[in-house]
Amino acid sequence: MYSIGIDIGGMSIKFGLVSGDGKILTKTVQKTPFNTADGVNAIISGIKELMQKADVKREEIKGIGIGCPGAVDSKEGIIDVLPNLGWESIAISKILKKEFDLPVKISNDANVATLAEVKYGSAKQYNTAVMFTLGTGVGGGIVIDGKLFEGGWSRGAELGHVTLYNDGIECTCGRRGCIERYVSATALIERTKTAMIGDKNSAMWDYVLGDIGKVDGRTAFECEKTGDKTAKEVVDAYVKDLGESIMNMLNIFRPEAFILGGGVSAQGKNLTDRLVKYCEKFEYGYHNSPVTKIITATLGNDAGIIGAAALIE
Amino acid sequence: MYSIGIDIGGMSIKFGLVSGDGKILTKTVQKTPFNTADGVNAIISGIKELMQKADVKREEIKGIGIGCPGAVDSKEGIIDVLPNLGWESIAISKILKKEFDLPVKISNDANVATLAEVKYGSAKQYNTAVMFTLGTGVGGGIVIDGKLFEGGWSRGAELGHVTLYNDGIECTCGRRGCIERYVSATALIERTKTAMIGDKNSAMWDYVLGDIGKVDGRTAFECEKTGDKTAKEVVDAYVKDLGESIMNMLNIFRPEAFILGGGVSAQGKNLTDRLVKYCEKFEYGYHNSPVTKIITATLGNDAGIIGAAALIE
Repeated sequence: MYSIGIDIGGMSIKFGLVSGDGKILTKTVQKTPFNTADGVNAIISGIKELMQKADVKREEIKGIGIGCPGAVDSKEGIIDVLPNLGWESIAISKILKKEFDLPVKISNDANVATLAEVKYGSAKQYNTAVMFTLGTGVGGGIVIDGKLFEGGWSRGAELGHVTLYNDGIECTCGRRGCIERYVSATALIERTKTAMIGDKNSAMWDYVLGDIGKVDGRTAFECEKTGDKTAKEVVDAYVKDLGESIMNMLNIFRPEAFILGGGVSAQGKNLTDRLVKYCEKFEYGYHNSPVTKIITATLGNDAGIIGAAALIE
Repeated sequence: MYSIGIDIGGMSIKFGLVSGDGKILTKTVQKTPFNTADGVNAIISGIKELMQKADVKREEIKGIGIGCPGAVDSKEGIIDVLPNLGWESIAISKILKKEFDLPVKISNDANVATLAEVKYGSAKQYNTAVMFTLGTGVGGGIVIDGKLFEGGWSRGAELGHVTLYNDGIECTCGRRGCIERYVSATALIERTKTAMIGDKNSAMWDYVLGDIGKVDGRTAFECEKTGDKTAKEVVDAYVKDLGESIMNMLNIFRPEAFILGGGVSAQGKNLTDRLVKYCEKFEYGYHNSPVTKIITATLGNDAGIIGAAALIE
């Protein structure tokens, strides 16, 4: 038996036929439409295309799981709002059940990625893990005893919108000082640019060939290796803020593993070793704390499909 | 059938025989000893005294639950360390099982108080709730779907040690800026004293008869009612910090209820109405968030005994 995992993103909607052990056997993709009606049609077409391409029958499929970049009501199977896509109030479970007569489960994309990493990826030897996805924003996911914890009304686990600096930088959520404003890839790029503007002699200028528009999440990490002091300051400040954010989560959940995903996590051990060193200074946030492993995600872009499929038990 | 609930405190150890519906039928008390051996003896004596006073037989008791002011290993039934009492490494479950041949469960005191409020107190119509106990420090408790969530190694739910101000006031836990340093009763008293020293004309001086040593958690709240501007500033700043701390928890858990316990919660609706007003400004911390009820605990000092007994299912 297989499950279908669907990963709705800002550019494309990815569809995968996933085996019982979390392997993607066949993939298809649709361009993301930016209105509700076309969105629904793209999902239906994508599923049909996938089943055709994989040559599987409805009877061989256990169900359809969907990871959504926004707010969903997972209990009722309704996509409430995907702000960046302009999709709203889609009773997707009902629609797909009618079309395919299969069980449908939905969740937020960061939740789904976390579930994938715990079931099949970086944290598969653990039952309890918390994850930050460090991308455009900071997504959060929580898996307790192997089960996704989405919070009440499936509207918790917004870990990027826990504050790090009270009265800090204004956030898109309406509050100030959220974690997202300091440790997302976007924030790291902003920090890097600001530091470069303050130091015209930084090696980072050479690295981006004088074009500040070319700065990305790697710039400071790479230039630090060449001994650039300003780059090191950027990385140190970033590690401190990420370390503090992680320690806050450890004091709440004390998970077996803390997973970092998203673009910045490509730094791998270079990042996690420094985070471990920072957290050790504070006994991982609390007196004689048991040690949570800090690791990076391993499923990469496939986590969305695999995790969505993993919603189907 | 009954359960025995034991609430270990800094002054006394309280013992209660608790009915299946969370009512305390008989109570006894022992003075808290400040070393491990005497602590164990006090617990054993207290249980015997309680059973004698209540005239119940071992066969009528389902088990013994204990709430501890410190770190415990609830899985193994070991009290790791109660720092303020000097108790360490007590295999209490084994000891009491040998003595009374009854199941024994232990947890942290704030966890136990939260469980009591959800099962029998302020939040009994809810299944999912998060609690701050605003006392000397800030304790935290999390109940998800009617079950206590203690975090891994029973060492999570340290909600008072999530930071509110990065690089803020130094905390006893070794980090800086923890919630506890801003919204505990101790912190409120410090805020009040500092404000009074800055305003010799504040009505708060009259309220404490000129003796700053008499300031307590009520002083600013009471004097604000008389129109004292400085008192109002203290309360406003306190409500803001508590509101921000609560919104952080809502974004993580989105519980049905957020409970305030401990001394400061005696302010009741005067406090919760203001917190609601503050949180409403930020949609309870996130876009179109479902509304979590913010309420105060109702079981008071009995929560410790009742919640400890509630550990026994």
